[in-house]
Amino acid sequence: MKLYGYWRSSAAYRVRIALNLKQLPAEQVSVHLVNNGGEQHSDAFHQLNPQHLVPALVDSEDGAEFSLTQSLAIIEYLDEKYPQPSVLPEQIKDKAIVRAMAQSIACEIHPLDNLRVLQYLVKEMGVDENQKMAWYHHWIHLGFSALESQLVQYSGRYCFGDNVTLADICLIPQIYNAKRFNVALDKYPNISRIWDNCHQLSAFINAAPEQQADAS
Amino acid sequence: MKLYGYWRSSAAYRVRIALNLKQLPAEQVSVHLVNNGGEQHSDAFHQLNPQHLVPALVDSEDGAEFSLTQSLAIIEYLDEKYPQPSVLPEQIKDKAIVRAMAQSIACEIHPLDNLRVLQYLVKEMGVDENQKMAWYHHWIHLGFSALESQLVQYSGRYCFGDNVTLADICLIPQIYNAKRFNVALDKYPNISRIWDNCHQLSAFINAAPEQQADAS
Repeated sequence: MKLYGYWRSSAAYRVRIALNLKQLPAEQVSVHLVNNGGEQHSDAFHQLNPQHLVPALVDSEDGAEFSLTQSLAIIEYLDEKYPQPSVLPEQIKDKAIVRAMAQSIACEIHPLDNLRVLQYLVKEMGVDENQKMAWYHHWIHLGFSALESQLVQYSGRYCFGDNVTLADICLIPQIYNAKRFNVALDKYPNISRIWDNCHQLSAFINAAPEQQADAS
Repeated sequence: MKLYGYWRSSAAYRVRIALNLKQLPAEQVSVHLVNNGGEQHSDAFHQLNPQHLVPALVDSEDGAEFSLTQSLAIIEYLDEKYPQPSVLPEQIKDKAIVRAMAQSIACEIHPLDNLRVLQYLVKEMGVDENQKMAWYHHWIHLGFSALESQLVQYSGRYCFGDNVTLADICLIPQIYNAKRFNVALDKYPNISRIWDNCHQLSAFINAAPEQQADAS
């Protein structure tokens, strides 16, 4: 398998964690999101993902290569193809709760605070640095406040009980991103605790942006 | 089951389609997203979803009620609990492609163009009507252009072959929303065709916003 990603992309970071948890080897191919106007817009990458977003996972079946997009779809693909250790609980209801936590990050926080959106605000709308940071902080606090109260109900050592799930896989890259933008996390004791607990695990440590070959 | 939704919410609309496809009865409870400062912010609704977003699905197990959030997690829950007819293909790879199409709408278009974000742009950032519409159109065209090229590869009568899937369930509400904001769809022949084909089915027709009791 080949994972097309970028060291600082939260979505690629999620897939790296999942690959590490399952101890699956994948060649890492760097798609630089800033240099050359963004390599994700190249013709070559367009063939892999017409959305011009990382990650894309290239895998093969009966000798034919194919490309998969969207980090959560890629992770569920890996989870179905290589079920051990699973990143979803067994019970249908529990699975829904974990997927919902993951989506509360992937659908409500990350899309608003990622690079292309911040670039649009600055370049197309002419917002200043303060407004940009207020925007970033607004959506992360809204999302983390809601998640924190769900964690009071459901968390154990990790977001859902004592096993690592898709929710942790989404949460850690989002916290990493928040720290980069100087978001104070003291209001979120469960989120902070889960950050610490996940960083006891090599799967998370080795997936961190600074550990990647394309980190600069 | 009780579905807490709102007639114009794209995410609630997705769940209504899934319930209809599976012919599952659910009491519809309206949460008015505009009146009274937004009923999704009430204490009562906070108990069901601390994210203050619709939909929330209340179901029960062994007599105990519980609430599920996030439309895609709810739909996969319904699909696992009531597998016929399934809204996902059988093969792992195909499933990943369908989930990715659904997420390309749910994670890349809808979060940027939904009500609370448009409200933030106007109220907090002071953007004018033209800038707001340019923002809306920008993200929908970006997302639909990418999806259109995936549909060239994968679509049949619907987004993925000839069976209705999660991808159609996400696409139809997003098209409905785009039409409301006067987005021209002529550049997207496959998206337009799938709109027409889905509207041959009562599951989609009956889930439309104007068909809901709280439509105004």
